[in-house]
Amino acid sequence: MEIKIMKNILDRNQNKANEVRELLRAKNVLMVNIISSPGAGKTTLLERTCEKLGKKFRIAVIEGDITTDRDAQRLKKYNIPIVVINTEGGCHLDSHSISKVLGEFDLENIDILFIENVGNLICPSEFDLGEEFKIAVVSTAEGDDKPGKYPLLFREAKAVLLNKTDLIPYTNFNFSTFKTDLDKINAEIPLFEVSCTKGNGLEKWFEWIEKQIRI
Amino acid sequence: MEIKIMKNILDRNQNKANEVRELLRAKNVLMVNIISSPGAGKTTLLERTCEKLGKKFRIAVIEGDITTDRDAQRLKKYNIPIVVINTEGGCHLDSHSISKVLGEFDLENIDILFIENVGNLICPSEFDLGEEFKIAVVSTAEGDDKPGKYPLLFREAKAVLLNKTDLIPYTNFNFSTFKTDLDKINAEIPLFEVSCTKGNGLEKWFEWIEKQIRI
Repeated sequence: MEIKIMKNILDRNQNKANEVRELLRAKNVLMVNIISSPGAGKTTLLERTCEKLGKKFRIAVIEGDITTDRDAQRLKKYNIPIVVINTEGGCHLDSHSISKVLGEFDLENIDILFIENVGNLICPSEFDLGEEFKIAVVSTAEGDDKPGKYPLLFREAKAVLLNKTDLIPYTNFNFSTFKTDLDKINAEIPLFEVSCTKGNGLEKWFEWIEKQIRI
Repeated sequence: MEIKIMKNILDRNQNKANEVRELLRAKNVLMVNIISSPGAGKTTLLERTCEKLGKKFRIAVIEGDITTDRDAQRLKKYNIPIVVINTEGGCHLDSHSISKVLGEFDLENIDILFIENVGNLICPSEFDLGEEFKIAVVSTAEGDDKPGKYPLLFREAKAVLLNKTDLIPYTNFNFSTFKTDLDKINAEIPLFEVSCTKGNGLEKWFEWIEKQIRI
């Protein structure tokens, strides 16, 4: 019985996601759904990406947060269109909420629309928002066992950013444990080892995401 | 409609939680529900706690994990009763799953039963498992904005452990920002500043949890 209800919700989510994707493709907007645990560095990644690519491409952001607009406040300085969705306790965004806020954007004048999902390594992975693809961000401070313990996101994502590599010397993070687990789940996935606060390793990410915009 | 269904699930969860709590009180078992983001240090906290209090008290653990029994494997060396609940994708434990596994324990011979919930700062906070109280664990590497952005857990918990204080010098974590937010949500809550890997600051936690067992 509960499974049936869930299936219904997911079916309705999928239909709306397909609609959203079709609309955004027609408008030539690349929508990217960024997913991570709380505090893995999604907002800092967006800051660095706006700084590097903000002149070359027209960037916009949907900020998913349970409450507050703090992440959006951090991005205000880049003068980009930002819409905040407060889920009021909800643990993920869904395609209906994305569909509703798309009207707030001038889609003709956007090249890439990032969604910063609610900080949660589990639930957001299950919901197609109509994005072109998902990105997984994981911090070294979370430990090297995350792909093994939370496989769905790492299976679903098109790229992984391993963030906070500058903290590796101060933690027991073992890169080869991390990589071995990730390879078992998704051997082909591009992996970017970065520190968004220090700016390390981001060039490859910028190149890669730029290529996605141009496809 | 969806709200009604959710209310039904929560009602059923609450009834079963009350049953579980009644049973455990009758058996004089203190059940503690530990909640955090992925990789904030719940298992390491349990390791340190078993080392310190394992001779004085009879400890048991329920390990909630999406998949794998890795956390349980880490605790095996303490020779304590451990049961793993794999949620197979589920983002939290509920009282029905706890109720089902209680039969695996010899409750007459347990003083404290820790639940290590699924790594998720959002959903587990909404589910009463029949515990005596919840504990929030948050890592400095997640940033100082977690209580403000994810308030429910910090409102519900009986104590907060701020873990990985040894990483503060290498991050932009600001203690006073963290504390100001926490005070707004739950000014009276005991806060333990610890590093579970280095062993710093744990004495006060041991004292506090010992007192709870003796109540």
